[in-house]
Amino acid sequence: MKHVCLVIGAGAGIGGTVGSHFAREGFHAVLCRRSDQAGLDRLVNDIKSDGGDATGFLVNAVEDNAIEDLIAEVESDIGPIQVVIYNLGAQIGDRKLEDTSYGAFEMGWRLGTFGLFRVAKTVCPLMAERGNGTLLVTSATAAMRGNAGQHSHAAAMGGRRMLCQTLNAQYAAKGIHVAHIIIDGAVDAPDTLGKMLGRESFQELRNTRGARDGLLLPEKIADTYLHLARQHRSTWTHEIDLRPYSDTAWWN
Amino acid sequence: MKHVCLVIGAGAGIGGTVGSHFAREGFHAVLCRRSDQAGLDRLVNDIKSDGGDATGFLVNAVEDNAIEDLIAEVESDIGPIQVVIYNLGAQIGDRKLEDTSYGAFEMGWRLGTFGLFRVAKTVCPLMAERGNGTLLVTSATAAMRGNAGQHSHAAAMGGRRMLCQTLNAQYAAKGIHVAHIIIDGAVDAPDTLGKMLGRESFQELRNTRGARDGLLLPEKIADTYLHLARQHRSTWTHEIDLRPYSDTAWWN
Amino acid sequence: MKHVCLVIGAGAGIGGTVGSHFAREGFHAVLCRRSDQAGLDRLVNDIKSDGGDATGFLVNAVEDNAIEDLIAEVESDIGPIQVVIYNLGAQIGDRKLEDTSYGAFEMGWRLGTFGLFRVAKTVCPLMAERGNGTLLVTSATAAMRGNAGQHSHAAAMGGRRMLCQTLNAQYAAKGIHVAHIIIDGAVDAPDTLGKMLGRESFQELRNTRGARDGLLLPEKIADTYLHLARQHRSTWTHEIDLRPYSDTAWWN
Amino acid sequence: MKHVCLVIGAGAGIGGTVGSHFAREGFHAVLCRRSDQAGLDRLVNDIKSDGGDATGFLVNAVEDNAIEDLIAEVESDIGPIQVVIYNLGAQIGDRKLEDTSYGAFEMGWRLGTFGLFRVAKTVCPLMAERGNGTLLVTSATAAMRGNAGQHSHAAAMGGRRMLCQTLNAQYAAKGIHVAHIIIDGAVDAPDTLGKMLGRESFQELRNTRGARDGLLLPEKIADTYLHLARQHRSTWTHEIDLRPYSDTAWWN
Repeated sequence: MKHVCLVIGAGAGIGGTVGSHFAREGFHAVLCRRSDQAGLDRLVNDIKSDGGDATGFLVNAVEDNAIEDLIAEVESDIGPIQVVIYNLGAQIGDRKLEDTSYGAFEMGWRLGTFGLFRVAKTVCPLMAERGNGTLLVTSATAAMRGNAGQHSHAAAMGGRRMLCQTLNAQYAAKGIHVAHIIIDGAVDAPDTLGKMLGRESFQELRNTRGARDGLLLPEKIADTYLHLARQHRSTWTHEIDLRPYSDTAWWN
Repeated sequence: MKHVCLVIGAGAGIGGTVGSHFAREGFHAVLCRRSDQAGLDRLVNDIKSDGGDATGFLVNAVEDNAIEDLIAEVESDIGPIQVVIYNLGAQIGDRKLEDTSYGAFEMGWRLGTFGLFRVAKTVCPLMAERGNGTLLVTSATAAMRGNAGQHSHAAAMGGRRMLCQTLNAQYAAKGIHVAHIIIDGAVDAPDTLGKMLGRESFQELRNTRGARDGLLLPEKIADTYLHLARQHRSTWTHEIDLRPYSDTAWWN
Repeated sequence: MKHVCLVIGAGAGIGGTVGSHFAREGFHAVLCRRSDQAGLDRLVNDIKSDGGDATGFLVNAVEDNAIEDLIAEVESDIGPIQVVIYNLGAQIGDRKLEDTSYGAFEMGWRLGTFGLFRVAKTVCPLMAERGNGTLLVTSATAAMRGNAGQHSHAAAMGGRRMLCQTLNAQYAAKGIHVAHIIIDGAVDAPDTLGKMLGRESFQELRNTRGARDGLLLPEKIADTYLHLARQHRSTWTHEIDLRPYSDTAWWN
Repeated sequence: MKHVCLVIGAGAGIGGTVGSHFAREGFHAVLCRRSDQAGLDRLVNDIKSDGGDATGFLVNAVEDNAIEDLIAEVESDIGPIQVVIYNLGAQIGDRKLEDTSYGAFEMGWRLGTFGLFRVAKTVCPLMAERGNGTLLVTSATAAMRGNAGQHSHAAAMGGRRMLCQTLNAQYAAKGIHVAHIIIDGAVDAPDTLGKMLGRESFQELRNTRGARDGLLLPEKIADTYLHLARQHRSTWTHEIDLRPYSDTAWWN
């Protein structure tokens, strides 16, 4: 039985790419996303035709028991979950307070904070019993500071960051490596940024800023995720930021 | 019509004491708490017998429309809300991940983060239209860093802190002063710490640590809340910490 | 013998104004600045004609023994130093790395970091022996984050901030209140901003941004310094930020 | 001509180990340290017998022109400096304020802050002209928060951290990757921790905590340094922390 790398939020950006990198390292990549069976199949088939193992699930993570049942199924049918990539975003673009509904605010929390809590509550006891495991959490600028229009996103990501620290405090000494990864720039990701901007604007952005390496490349992000997962337990990273050389950092 | 200072979370600690200080400054103090009509009446009567104006409401803030209806009622029947003290805590003591239920985690968010969002969404447009207002948010160590056992609390407070920053970013220039106040130590508060510890242990703590000024005194906290509310708009504070001289700071 | 409030860096901005506020509260204000005897005399005479006590010293704080001798003289001839306002700035405007000389970098450290260390080393043992004292340290945006052109200033202020935390860690429990005050905006100060911009530009800035309360007013800053100095030891602030309502915060 | 990896502070811990890792990747490792010719020769010879290129220099970095002359010599005689590892520490153990001399405080700054400024001022223009370069700065817990006894160290490292941010702000877009690496735990380093503790205590620490991977291993730290140096410019890290799984993080 291969060790599993479970990716929650596996679109054609960070999630899918990180999954395929872990598959290349010998993990069975379990890719989960909410919708787009065709896109999911493509990711799974790419991994397989590359000689790797992968399974895809369409899962609506915010539904009751969806995450919990998934983890149980993977553990019993595929293999022990060695690595979790928690990659659900909660960015809805800049919206003024008056344009941020209670529903949008709550959905931010369900995706950004509560979903991670549910994953941790289900998987950390298993990892702790095995004495090891890795939980890599994709995060965002908004985890570090709120800004106008980010009411839902910043509250969700601020909660996510503090939750990562509580998980680290309880579980690091038990062998679980929790890392909070701050993506502080725009990612070259068709399934998130691409959908937010629309096909044409996204292509233009790629042709201009992207052509000068001004968009974070999922392939390169995946290199860092892999590095974090391989760190020796004497030398673990809990927090790291990533941004294009040409971007100003969030604190500037 | 007097200006109103609305205190959400008005027990016999920070909330009630801050309310009475604002009443002494000429505000109509509107005190809200979830339970204990007798305790609420005592706070209101103390203010009145001191020559101030006060009204008390028993409100379960997490219920649908409770906060929204309350604000509407206060604005129409009592006066314009000039100051909001958001003082709902979400501390449930240290609980391991396995002892933190989904319900407890969600309740942390409802009290710690979402409640503030609902207040802000209801009251900020009114304040912005009037060109001024003050939103003083009591916060906690857990807003700054997660720690073992603080899963629910830290996620809730981390969200709260980021939300304060988004509100500040949208509303400061419109005249609304948002302050995030980090209470980084134990408060001499019978209705929160007192209930958590039990009557006897709390009294002993008062007699020992408290006798050496090692517990934050609500009266003294209220001095700082008043100072913040009075700051001239050329010189506003957004974040401030408070702790006893004898405590180590959260970063140590 | 009156208690002394010693202001190191007492120009016609924060330093001088804070000094006069403390004089009004009954302190003997000892005002120190490097140059401009006439300006210093004006500050001292204003305090005196207001009924307060004040003494002025022209002191070049970076000279060997200057600070140490001054403190000894004040303690023996004027009174016990109860409050120190450390207000030496190290802002030299934005300069690229290639335009920042070793000398400028070192001067930043001498004013921004080492001067505070010298003051603390001289005065903290005295305060600790008396069981109380207050050290209010004016700081800047650059203490929180570096930015292009701020090489000297940010290094100096980053050192200052960490030094304030070490002093707090050693001395708070001994009764010395150390506060790090982040001035996160432009101050309406003729002796610093005024000189940097030149008379005319400064006047124009006052007439425009200043007229809308967009410059921090020294009088209002002084209110907060006084508040900090008066905080009860059960409820001390170590870090606080101040900015005009119309400015974006440093993290935005 | 090979590209050079210049290590400033190359003892038998992080510095020497990182140097040897870069040599294995094809860099000419230039190792500099203040003393111990024999130890330096050993590091250089180990690299050479491993098939790599290395040169050693005994340099007292705090002396006038020492760093500047060294960089000029390396650039003219060995090759273009592609990577700088700034690894000078300034830890002198916990010392109370009264036990921290002016000299110790200044030495902290000279090693911790000013030395980095001198390196940057000399090497950044060269790197910027070539359009690329990497500056990896070893840092410490004390860069993030001051603590009792850390007066000199925290002031030095706080300045270092802010300086890294100013350098990043000016030079990232010009192709220079600056990373601030927070070593938040004890390193298994004979030349620093070993000397501080003494041979016997150090060996015991290795046998106990070290045997359970509770000391950061220089080999493993070097893996992360290499990873940072290889990051694609679309995806750069500016700040990262490293600690043993069994240590509490600095914020806890």
